Amino acid sequence: DISTLDYKTSHTSHTFPGLINIGAFVPRLVEPGSVDFFEVTKASTSAGFTTIQILPYGTDGSILNEESLSAAQANATGAAHCDYLMSVAASPSNIAEITEDLQAETKALFIPSTNLTDRNVNAVTALAAHFASWPSDKPIITDAKATDLGSVLLLASLHSRSVHIMNVTTRDDLLLIALSKEKKLKVTCDVSIYSLFFTREKFPGSTCLPSAEDQAALWKNIHVVDVFTIGSTPYQLALELGKEAKAWSGIEEAMPLLLSAVGEGRLTLDDIRQRLHDNPIRIFDIPEQAHIQVEVVVNRRAPLSRALDGWSPLDGKMVSGGIHRVVVQGQTAFLDGMTYSLPIGRDVTAGVVPARAVDRRASFSVV
Amino acid sequence: DISTLDYKTSHTSHTFPGLINIGAFVPRLVEPGSVDFFEVTKASTSAGFTTIQILPYGTDGSILNEESLSAAQANATGAAHCDYLMSVAASPSNIAEITEDLQAETKALFIPSTNLTDRNVNAVTALAAHFASWPSDKPIITDAKATDLGSVLLLASLHSRSVHIMNVTTRDDLLLIALSKEKKLKVTCDVSIYSLFFTREKFPGSTCLPSAEDQAALWKNIHVVDVFTIGSTPYQLALELGKEAKAWSGIEEAMPLLLSAVGEGRLTLDDIRQRLHDNPIRIFDIPEQAHIQVEVVVNRRAPLSRALDGWSPLDGKMVSGGIHRVVVQGQTAFLDGMTYSLPIGRDVTAGVVPARAVDRRASFSVV
Ligand SMILES: [Zn+2]
Ligand SMILES: [Zn+2]
Ligand SMILES: [Zn+2]
Ligand SMILES: [Zn+2]
Ligand SMILES: [Zn+2]
Ligand SMILES: [Zn+2]
Ligand SMILES: [Zn+2]
Ligand SMILES: [Zn+2]
Repeated sequence: DISTLDYKTSHTSHTFPGLINIGAFVPRLVEPGSVDFFEVTKASTSAGFTTIQILPYGTDGSILNEESLSAAQANATGAAHCDYLMSVAASPSNIAEITEDLQAETKALFIPSTNLTDRNVNAVTALAAHFASWPSDKPIITDAKATDLGSVLLLASLHSRSVHIMNVTTRDDLLLIALSKEKKLKVTCDVSIYSLFFTREKFPGSTCLPSAEDQAALWKNIHVVDVFTIGSTPYQLALELGKEAKAWSGIEEAMPLLLSAVGEGRLTLDDIRQRLHDNPIRIFDIPEQAHIQVEVVVNRRAPLSRALDGWSPLDGKMVSGGIHRVVVQGQTAFLDGMTYSLPIGRDVTAGVVPARAVDRRASFSVV
Repeated sequence: DISTLDYKTSHTSHTFPGLINIGAFVPRLVEPGSVDFFEVTKASTSAGFTTIQILPYGTDGSILNEESLSAAQANATGAAHCDYLMSVAASPSNIAEITEDLQAETKALFIPSTNLTDRNVNAVTALAAHFASWPSDKPIITDAKATDLGSVLLLASLHSRSVHIMNVTTRDDLLLIALSKEKKLKVTCDVSIYSLFFTREKFPGSTCLPSAEDQAALWKNIHVVDVFTIGSTPYQLALELGKEAKAWSGIEEAMPLLLSAVGEGRLTLDDIRQRLHDNPIRIFDIPEQAHIQVEVVVNRRAPLSRALDGWSPLDGKMVSGGIHRVVVQGQTAFLDGMTYSLPIGRDVTAGVVPARAVDRRASFSVV
């Protein structure tokens, strides 16, 4: 870690590598002509997230087959400001549609908990079929909770394969994951950044947030948490509270929240790097990005500076850290609240893509 | 197998060893002065079940601690017509009450699904604690279903211990068990005998029975089913249909139903022996009873002969087999519909108890 202390203001600046959000929610995901890929990826780059893994479900439909994947790909092509990975959702009925071609074009199989709690379908049997047919070297992700989580972990155990649990919100689920790790099950997990800072008690009417008691357990067992994500929680929270939900909800709040926790001594900069860079790369085999710097500042107390509109739980609140500058391949993509990024994000689902010619890149530069 | 064919009537008689019902429901289990132990055990002996494992929950309460166990033991002592084993129920809050003494006095830990579906408690964490503290050489039984079943199997897998799944009613659950067996998990299961012969479609309003489709799957995968039980299904069915539920509901129907299936070629006599004798003894380490003969008849079509009152789903129906005679230590306990059994059942929870002196036994004989 290279940190410099600014003696005039006694704040600390620090440079991270390109950060990764493995749970990027794109509301209008498969709708033809949707600009949400543009919005989400632009906000992501400005917030330091230069690679994002797209959640395969939106408000308008899910990626369940070739057709819906193509629709999402079409929305992303030429519109993405950061690198992205595509994933596919498992449903009780789409096992036959997840062809080898579709597997090759997606990074992870996502098992939404909503598809598990439909007691009218043979959910566990369908799940078992997905576990049996999804390639063993590619990740399976689920946001299953409570006893549904038990079923997923059982299938992972029976098939001796790894599984990543997304958006853990309860003490119970985290302890089951801890127990499973202890017993050498190949399980990893993440929590939504909002779940670490906001509670049901603070926002009555919300169901996507943990209770204060569960949140305390997440912090107490933060060593069990491999990854931080943005997830769909910010969007859901806005909806649940009757506020304006935006494609970029929760993205620019992510690092200011985490860096404020660093200021309070609840996290270290290294904790953040592990959970937004090292572990995502290791767990999901995400290509390392070269020549990216995310310059942040810590211990500088100020109201959250926002570049985007829409409701935020941090509106009018003080934070003590944030993004100063994002540099992508020598070009400043974000600086002091202003975005200069370009729609040059690549689909890195299948691994590293050839480097862009520097002259082609330069011709797009507006900085 | 020693079978004799009666040439006059062309029915077959066959002798089984003492049969075992590992899921005996005693409605008023812990109520002081309850006569249900007397009723259930008398009906069991007459029906060929000379050893029964008592389910630790009744309509009036459960065996959850020393006090409730003592209440049940007091009801059984001197009243039981067949040998019996006691078990204890796990609740999210009784982990500390399951003392070493209580463990020694009970055969199995039963995890009722109702205690798993209370989403207000940290059910999986409580369950994990029970799995960690129940002696590894004693059985754990559960009637968990769907994703709850997944959680239980996961804990069994994580703790490398065996678990018995009681009262499987769906294709989905049976296939998850089959998959677990295939993957070398130490899991066994039973189905309630009523679930093999009655359906929700046949008795609209019932929820304890399988659907016709699920029932077909139970039959198709009958090789996965280790044990048949009577369970609480007959009692529940009567309640759900607004009929008279009795302590003995479903007991005298058990063997006529199974033997009718033998007559139809859906089961063999050996299938029954395995699931009501060999496997229960092996799975639950139940003491073998000497000098017991259960003589049955197959292929003799007649209306069900009933010695007991109360509603039966077989009322007015034909069956093609039944119990002819039950002989316990040389004494006829049941013959041609008449019961001669005595309240000499022993608590065999802890294993074999010393044989009764023959002269003491003889002095009770009324045959
Ligand atoms: Zn540093
Ligand atoms: Zn394709
Ligand atoms: Zn790196
Ligand atoms: Zn500056
Ligand atoms: Zn025979
Ligand atoms: Zn005692
Ligand atoms: Zn035997
Ligand atoms: Zn006779």
